[in-house]
Amino acid sequence: MTESDLGRDVLLTSEERFQGSLLRLTVDRVRISSGVEARREVVHHPGGVGIVALADDGSVLLVRQYRHPAGELLWEIPAGGREEGESALEAARRELAEETGYGAEAWLAVGATFLAPGYSTELLWYYRATGITVVGDPDPDPDEVLQSRLFSRDEVLELASQGLLRDAKTLAGLALAGVLRLVPEAP
Amino acid sequence: MTESDLGRDVLLTSEERFQGSLLRLTVDRVRISSGVEARREVVHHPGGVGIVALADDGSVLLVRQYRHPAGELLWEIPAGGREEGESALEAARRELAEETGYGAEAWLAVGATFLAPGYSTELLWYYRATGITVVGDPDPDPDEVLQSRLFSRDEVLELASQGLLRDAKTLAGLALAGVLRLVPEAP
Repeated sequence: MTESDLGRDVLLTSEERFQGSLLRLTVDRVRISSGVEARREVVHHPGGVGIVALADDGSVLLVRQYRHPAGELLWEIPAGGREEGESALEAARRELAEETGYGAEAWLAVGATFLAPGYSTELLWYYRATGITVVGDPDPDPDEVLQSRLFSRDEVLELASQGLLRDAKTLAGLALAGVLRLVPEAP
Repeated sequence: MTESDLGRDVLLTSEERFQGSLLRLTVDRVRISSGVEARREVVHHPGGVGIVALADDGSVLLVRQYRHPAGELLWEIPAGGREEGESALEAARRELAEETGYGAEAWLAVGATFLAPGYSTELLWYYRATGITVVGDPDPDPDEVLQSRLFSRDEVLELASQGLLRDAKTLAGLALAGVLRLVPEAP
Protein backbone atom coordinates (compact mmCIF):
# COMPACT_ATOMS: atom_id res chain seq x y z
CA MET A 1 0.00 0.00 0.00
CA THR A 2 1.37 3.39 -0.93
CA GLU A 3 0.45 6.83 0.32
CA SER A 4 -1.46 7.50 -2.90
CA ASP A 5 -3.91 4.70 -2.09
CA LEU A 6 -5.18 6.74 0.82
CA GLY A 7 -7.69 9.40 0.01
CA ARG A 8 -10.72 11.18 1.33
CA ASP A 9 -14.05 9.40 1.46
CA VAL A 10 -16.64 10.81 -0.92
CA LEU A 11 -19.90 11.57 0.86
CA LEU A 12 -22.83 10.08 -1.07
CA THR A 13 -25.77 10.61 1.30
CA SER A 14 -26.25 11.79 4.88
CA GLU A 15 -29.43 11.07 6.80
CA GLU A 16 -30.10 12.84 10.11
CA ARG A 17 -31.35 10.38 12.71
CA PHE A 18 -31.09 12.44 15.91
CA GLN A 19 -30.86 16.12 16.77
CA GLY A 20 -30.34 16.93 20.42
CA SER A 21 -29.12 19.92 22.36
CA LEU A 22 -25.46 18.75 22.35
CA LEU A 23 -25.26 16.01 19.73
CA ARG A 24 -26.55 15.33 16.24
CA LEU A 25 -26.33 11.86 14.69
CA THR A 26 -26.31 11.04 10.99
CA VAL A 27 -26.01 7.83 9.03
CA ASP A 28 -23.76 8.57 6.07
CA ARG A 29 -22.99 6.57 2.98
CA VAL A 30 -19.51 7.18 1.62
CA ARG A 31 -17.35 5.85 -1.18
CA ILE A 32 -13.92 5.05 0.24
CA SER A 33 -10.71 5.28 -1.79
CA SER A 34 -10.81 1.57 -2.70
CA GLY A 35 -14.12 2.29 -4.49
CA VAL A 36 -16.19 0.39 -1.92
CA GLU A 37 -19.36 2.00 -0.57
CA ALA A 38 -19.55 2.03 3.21
CA ARG A 39 -21.96 3.08 5.96
CA ARG A 40 -20.77 5.40 8.71
CA GLU A 41 -22.62 6.32 11.89
CA VAL A 42 -21.48 9.83 12.75
CA VAL A 43 -21.95 11.80 15.96
CA HIS A 44 -21.68 15.54 15.29
CA HIS A 45 -20.31 17.61 18.16
CA PRO A 46 -19.50 21.35 18.23
CA GLY A 47 -15.93 20.80 19.49
CA GLY A 48 -14.27 21.72 22.72
CA VAL A 49 -11.27 22.84 24.69
CA GLY A 50 -9.07 21.27 27.37
CA ILE A 51 -6.78 23.21 29.70
CA VAL A 52 -3.50 21.99 31.17
CA ALA A 53 -3.32 24.50 34.01
CA LEU A 54 0.06 24.68 35.74
CA ALA A 55 0.99 26.44 38.96
CA ASP A 56 4.42 28.06 39.32
CA ASP A 57 5.79 24.98 41.09
CA GLY A 58 4.75 22.80 38.14
CA SER A 59 1.74 21.23 39.82
CA VAL A 60 -1.27 20.44 37.64
CA LEU A 61 -4.89 21.44 38.26
CA LEU A 62 -7.35 18.58 37.71
CA VAL A 63 -11.10 18.37 38.16
CA ARG A 64 -13.10 15.41 39.36
CA GLN A 65 -16.68 14.77 38.36
CA TYR A 66 -19.11 11.96 37.89
CA ARG A 67 -19.52 11.14 34.22
CA HIS A 68 -22.83 9.45 33.60
CA PRO A 69 -21.84 7.87 30.24
CA ALA A 70 -18.70 6.42 31.86
CA GLY A 71 -20.51 5.45 35.05
CA GLU A 72 -17.48 6.64 37.03
CA LEU A 73 -15.99 9.59 38.88
CA LEU A 74 -13.04 10.72 36.74
CA TRP A 75 -10.06 13.00 37.27
CA GLU A 76 -9.72 15.12 34.13
CA ILE A 77 -8.12 18.32 32.91
CA PRO A 78 -10.66 21.18 32.96
CA ALA A 79 -12.55 21.06 29.68
CA GLY A 80 -15.78 21.97 28.00
CA GLY A 81 -17.59 22.79 24.83
CA ARG A 82 -17.22 25.92 22.76
CA GLU A 83 -20.24 28.14 22.82
CA GLU A 84 -21.70 29.87 19.80
CA GLY A 85 -19.44 32.61 18.46
CA GLU A 86 -16.73 31.93 21.03
CA SER A 87 -13.07 31.41 20.09
CA ALA A 88 -11.27 28.37 21.48
CA LEU A 89 -9.17 30.61 23.74
CA GLU A 90 -12.26 32.42 25.06
CA ALA A 91 -13.86 29.05 25.77
CA ALA A 92 -10.72 27.86 27.57
CA ARG A 93 -10.57 30.97 29.82
CA ARG A 94 -14.28 30.65 30.59
CA GLU A 95 -14.19 26.92 31.33
CA LEU A 96 -11.15 27.23 33.61
CA ALA A 97 -12.83 30.00 35.62
CA GLU A 98 -16.24 28.28 35.74
CA GLU A 99 -14.94 24.84 36.68
CA THR A 100 -12.16 25.83 39.09
CA GLY A 101 -12.23 29.55 39.92
CA TYR A 102 -8.69 29.91 38.54
CA GLY A 103 -7.31 32.35 36.00
CA ALA A 104 -3.92 32.23 34.29
CA GLU A 105 -1.18 34.71 33.35
CA ALA A 106 -0.23 33.06 30.07
CA TRP A 107 -2.11 30.92 27.57
CA LEU A 108 -0.45 28.84 24.87
CA ALA A 109 -2.30 26.78 22.25
CA VAL A 110 -0.49 23.43 22.17
CA GLY A 111 -2.47 21.41 19.65
CA ALA A 112 -5.73 19.66 18.97
CA THR A 113 -6.94 16.08 18.80
CA PHE A 114 -10.01 14.24 17.77
CA LEU A 115 -11.40 12.21 20.65
CA ALA A 116 -13.12 9.36 18.81
CA PRO A 117 -12.46 9.93 15.09
CA GLY A 118 -14.08 6.64 14.12
CA TYR A 119 -17.52 8.00 14.93
CA SER A 120 -17.36 11.53 16.39
CA THR A 121 -16.52 14.84 14.73
CA GLU A 122 -15.36 16.32 18.02
CA LEU A 123 -12.05 18.16 17.79
CA LEU A 124 -10.63 19.30 21.12
CA TRP A 125 -8.17 22.21 21.33
CA TYR A 126 -5.63 22.13 24.15
CA TYR A 127 -4.16 25.09 26.02
CA ARG A 128 -1.22 25.27 28.40
CA ALA A 129 -2.17 27.84 31.03
CA THR A 130 0.62 28.99 33.34
CA GLY A 131 0.88 31.28 36.35
CA ILE A 132 -2.53 30.21 37.58
CA THR A 133 -4.13 31.89 40.59
CA VAL A 134 -7.56 31.84 42.19
CA VAL A 135 -9.61 34.70 40.75
CA GLY A 136 -13.05 33.85 42.08
CA ASP A 137 -15.40 31.10 43.12
CA PRO A 138 -16.09 28.25 40.74
CA ASP A 139 -19.35 28.74 38.87
CA PRO A 140 -20.14 25.41 37.21
CA ASP A 141 -23.17 24.76 35.04
CA PRO A 142 -26.25 23.96 37.15
CA ASP A 143 -26.13 20.35 35.91
CA GLU A 144 -22.48 19.83 36.94
CA VAL A 145 -20.92 19.01 40.30
CA LEU A 146 -17.14 19.36 40.24
CA GLN A 147 -14.21 19.27 42.58
CA SER A 148 -10.79 20.68 41.64
CA ARG A 149 -7.34 20.08 43.13
CA LEU A 150 -3.69 20.82 42.41
CA PHE A 151 -1.50 17.74 42.03
CA SER A 152 2.29 17.73 42.23
CA ARG A 153 4.11 15.80 39.49
CA ASP A 154 4.68 12.97 42.00
CA GLU A 155 0.98 12.87 42.74
CA VAL A 156 0.12 12.82 39.01
CA LEU A 157 2.52 9.90 38.63
CA GLU A 158 0.84 8.19 41.58
CA LEU A 159 -2.63 8.71 40.03
CA ALA A 160 -1.36 7.35 36.70
CA SER A 161 0.37 4.34 38.25
CA GLN A 162 -2.81 3.49 40.15
CA GLY A 163 -4.74 3.53 36.86
CA LEU A 164 -6.77 6.55 37.97
CA LEU A 165 -6.17 8.75 34.91
CA ARG A 166 -8.90 7.12 32.85
CA ASP A 167 -9.61 9.96 30.44
CA ALA A 168 -7.89 10.07 27.05
CA LYS A 169 -7.93 13.88 26.64
CA THR A 170 -6.23 14.29 30.01
CA LEU A 171 -3.24 12.17 28.96
CA ALA A 172 -3.24 13.73 25.46
CA GLY A 173 -3.32 17.22 26.92
CA LEU A 174 -0.46 16.50 29.36
CA ALA A 175 1.56 15.20 26.41
CA LEU A 176 0.86 18.18 24.15
CA ALA A 177 1.61 20.61 26.99
CA GLY A 178 4.99 18.97 27.58
CA VAL A 179 4.13 17.60 31.03
CA LEU A 180 4.66 14.18 29.46
CA ARG A 181 7.65 13.87 27.14
CA LEU A 182 8.75 11.27 24.65
CA VAL A 183 11.27 8.73 25.89
CA PRO A 184 13.99 8.92 23.24
CA GLU A 185 15.78 5.63 23.80
CA ALA A 186 14.67 2.10 23.02
CA PRO A 187 12.20 0.72 25.62
CA MET B 1 -16.43 21.39 47.87
CA THR B 2 -15.44 18.17 49.58
CA GLU B 3 -15.07 14.67 48.15
CA SER B 4 -18.37 13.68 49.78
CA ASP B 5 -20.29 16.15 47.61
CA LEU B 6 -19.42 14.07 44.56
CA GLY B 7 -21.57 11.06 43.94
CA ARG B 8 -23.02 8.95 41.22
CA ASP B 9 -25.89 10.27 39.14
CA VAL B 10 -29.17 8.42 39.68
CA LEU B 11 -30.71 7.33 36.39
CA LEU B 12 -34.39 8.32 36.27
CA THR B 13 -35.35 7.50 32.67
CA SER B 14 -33.56 6.43 29.50
CA GLU B 15 -35.15 6.81 26.09
CA GLU B 16 -33.59 5.11 23.06
CA ARG B 17 -33.46 7.48 20.10
CA PHE B 18 -31.15 5.61 17.70
CA GLN B 19 -29.98 2.03 17.29
CA GLY B 20 -27.37 1.43 14.62
CA SER B 21 -24.87 -1.28 13.84
CA LEU B 22 -22.08 0.37 15.88
CA LEU B 23 -23.77 3.00 18.04
CA ARG B 24 -26.89 3.37 20.14
CA LEU B 25 -28.04 6.76 21.40
CA THR B 26 -30.24 7.42 24.40
CA VAL B 27 -31.54 10.56 26.06
CA ASP B 28 -31.30 9.99 29.79
CA ARG B 29 -32.68 11.95 32.71
CA VAL B 30 -30.54 11.76 35.81
CA ARG B 31 -30.56 13.24 39.29
CA ILE B 32 -27.07 14.53 40.04
CA SER B 33 -25.59 14.65 43.53
CA SER B 34 -26.70 18.27 44.07
CA GLY B 35 -30.30 17.04 43.71
CA VAL B 36 -30.77 18.76 40.33
CA GLU B 37 -32.37 16.80 37.50
CA ALA B 38 -30.37 16.90 34.27
CA ARG B 39 -30.65 15.67 30.70
CA ARG B 40 -27.80 13.63 29.20
CA GLU B 41 -27.37 12.62 25.57
CA VAL B 42 -25.48 9.32 25.67
CA VAL B 43 -23.78 7.45 22.82
CA HIS B 44 -23.44 3.75 23.70
CA HIS B 45 -20.42 1.99 22.19
CA PRO B 46 -19.22 -1.60 22.74
CA GLY B 47 -15.68 -0.52 23.71
CA GLY B 48 -12.38 -1.05 22.04
CA VAL B 49 -8.67 -1.69 22.17
CA GLY B 50 -5.58 0.28 21.15
CA ILE B 51 -2.13 -1.24 20.63
CA VAL B 52 1.20 0.48 21.22
CA ALA B 53 3.30 -1.86 19.08
CA LEU B 54 7.06 -1.51 19.59
CA ALA B 55 9.88 -2.99 17.54
CA ASP B 56 13.07 -4.12 19.28
CA ASP B 57 14.78 -0.82 18.46
CA GLY B 58 11.97 1.09 20.20
CA SER B 59 10.27 2.30 17.03
CA VAL B 60 6.49 2.59 17.10
CA LEU B 61 4.03 1.14 14.58
CA LEU B 62 1.34 3.60 13.51
CA VAL B 63 -1.50 3.33 11.01
CA ARG B 64 -2.84 6.04 8.77
CA GLN B 65 -6.39 6.14 7.53
CA TYR B 66 -9.02 8.59 6.43
CA ARG B 67 -11.54 9.19 9.18
CA HIS B 68 -14.80 10.40 7.74
CA PRO B 69 -16.13 11.95 10.99
CA ALA B 70 -12.85 13.87 11.39
CA GLY B 71 -12.63 14.73 7.70
CA GLU B 72 -8.89 14.02 7.82
CA LEU B 73 -6.24 11.39 7.28
CA LEU B 74 -4.90 10.58 10.74
CA TRP B 75 -1.87 8.74 12.11
CA GLU B 76 -3.09 6.55 14.96
CA ILE B 77 -2.05 3.56 17.01
CA PRO B 78 -3.70 0.39 15.65
CA ALA B 79 -7.12 0.12 17.28
CA GLY B 80 -10.56 -1.30 16.85
CA GLY B 81 -13.73 -2.48 18.48
CA ARG B 82 -14.19 -5.62 20.53
CA GLU B 83 -16.30 -8.20 18.85
CA GLU B 84 -18.99 -10.25 20.58
CA GLY B 85 -17.52 -12.73 23.07
CA GLU B 86 -13.96 -11.56 22.47
CA SER B 87 -11.61 -10.59 25.30
CA ALA B 88 -9.75 -7.30 25.05
CA LEU B 89 -6.46 -9.14 24.48
CA GLU B 90 -7.97 -11.28 21.71
CA ALA B 91 -9.31 -8.14 20.07
CA ALA B 92 -5.91 -6.47 20.33
CA ARG B 93 -4.09 -9.42 18.70
CA ARG B 94 -6.71 -9.58 15.95
CA GLU B 95 -6.72 -5.84 15.25
CA LEU B 96 -2.91 -5.64 15.10
CA ALA B 97 -2.77 -8.52 12.60
CA GLU B 98 -5.70 -7.28 10.50
CA GLU B 99 -4.57 -3.66 10.31
CA THR B 100 -0.82 -4.17 9.96
CA GLY B 101 0.12 -7.82 9.38
CA TYR B 102 2.23 -7.74 12.55
CA GLY B 103 2.24 -10.09 15.53
CA ALA B 104 4.01 -9.58 18.86
CA GLU B 105 6.02 -11.72 21.30
CA ALA B 106 4.73 -10.10 24.46
CA TRP B 107 1.51 -8.33 25.35
CA LEU B 108 1.04 -6.16 28.42
CA ALA B 109 -2.23 -4.48 29.43
CA VAL B 110 -1.26 -0.93 30.39
CA GLY B 111 -4.57 0.70 31.25
CA ALA B 112 -7.84 1.96 29.90
CA THR B 113 -9.39 5.34 29.20
CA PHE B 114 -12.73 6.71 28.24
CA LEU B 115 -12.50 8.66 24.98
CA ALA B 116 -15.32 11.16 25.39
CA PRO B 117 -16.82 10.53 28.85
CA GLY B 118 -19.12 13.53 28.60
CA TYR B 119 -21.29 11.75 26.05
CA SER B 120 -19.86 8.35 25.08
CA THR B 121 -19.67 5.12 27.04
CA GLU B 122 -16.65 3.95 25.06
CA LEU B 123 -13.85 2.56 27.22
CA LEU B 124 -10.65 1.75 25.33
CA TRP B 125 -8.14 -0.80 26.68
CA TYR B 126 -4.49 -0.25 25.80
CA TYR B 127 -1.83 -2.90 25.21
CA ARG B 128 1.93 -2.59 24.93
CA ALA B 129 3.00 -5.15 22.34
CA THR B 130 6.74 -5.80 22.06
CA GLY B 131 8.96 -7.94 19.85
CA ILE B 132 6.75 -7.27 16.85
CA THR B 133 7.37 -9.03 13.52
CA VAL B 134 5.47 -9.36 10.27
CA VAL B 135 3.37 -12.53 10.41
CA GLY B 136 1.23 -12.10 7.32
CA ASP B 137 -0.47 -9.66 5.02
CA PRO B 138 -2.76 -7.02 6.48
CA ASP B 139 -6.42 -8.03 6.19
CA PRO B 140 -8.44 -4.91 6.96
CA ASP B 141 -12.21 -4.75 7.00
CA PRO B 142 -13.63 -4.27 3.49
CA ASP B 143 -14.71 -0.74 4.41
CA GLU B 144 -11.25 0.31 5.63
CA VAL B 145 -8.18 1.46 3.71
CA LEU B 146 -5.10 1.62 5.93
CA GLN B 147 -1.38 2.19 5.65
CA SER B 148 1.05 1.22 8.42
CA ARG B 149 4.63 2.35 9.13
CA LEU B 150 7.27 2.09 11.82
CA PHE B 151 8.42 5.41 13.24
CA SER B 152 11.61 5.95 15.21
CA ARG B 153 11.27 7.99 18.41
CA ASP B 154 12.79 10.95 16.55
CA GLU B 155 10.16 10.59 13.84
CA VAL B 156 7.36 10.37 16.43
CA LEU B 157 8.71 13.57 17.98
CA GLU B 158 8.78 15.15 14.53
CA LEU B 159 5.15 14.11 13.86
CA ALA B 160 4.12 15.49 17.26
CA SER B 161 6.00 18.77 16.83
CA GLN B 162 4.38 19.26 13.44
CA GLY B 163 0.95 18.82 15.06
CA LEU B 164 0.34 15.59 13.13
CA LEU B 165 -0.62 13.39 16.08
CA ARG B 166 -4.23 14.53 16.16
CA ASP B 167 -5.79 11.53 17.84
CA ALA B 168 -6.30 11.49 21.61
CA LYS B 169 -6.06 7.70 22.08
CA THR B 170 -2.70 7.68 20.30
CA LEU B 171 -1.16 10.13 22.77
CA ALA B 172 -2.93 8.46 25.71
CA GLY B 173 -1.68 5.03 24.59
CA LEU B 174 1.90 6.24 24.19
CA ALA B 175 1.70 7.68 27.71
CA LEU B 176 0.26 4.53 29.29
CA ALA B 177 2.81 2.36 27.47
CA GLY B 178 5.68 4.45 28.84
CA VAL B 179 6.74 5.87 25.47
CA LEU B 180 5.83 9.25 26.92
CA ARG B 181 6.89 9.87 30.51
CA LEU B 182 6.04 12.48 33.08
CA VAL B 183 8.45 15.38 33.38
CA PRO B 184 9.17 15.46 37.11
CA GLU B 185 10.51 18.97 37.56
CA ALA B 186 8.68 22.27 37.40
CA PRO B 187 8.00 23.44 33.83
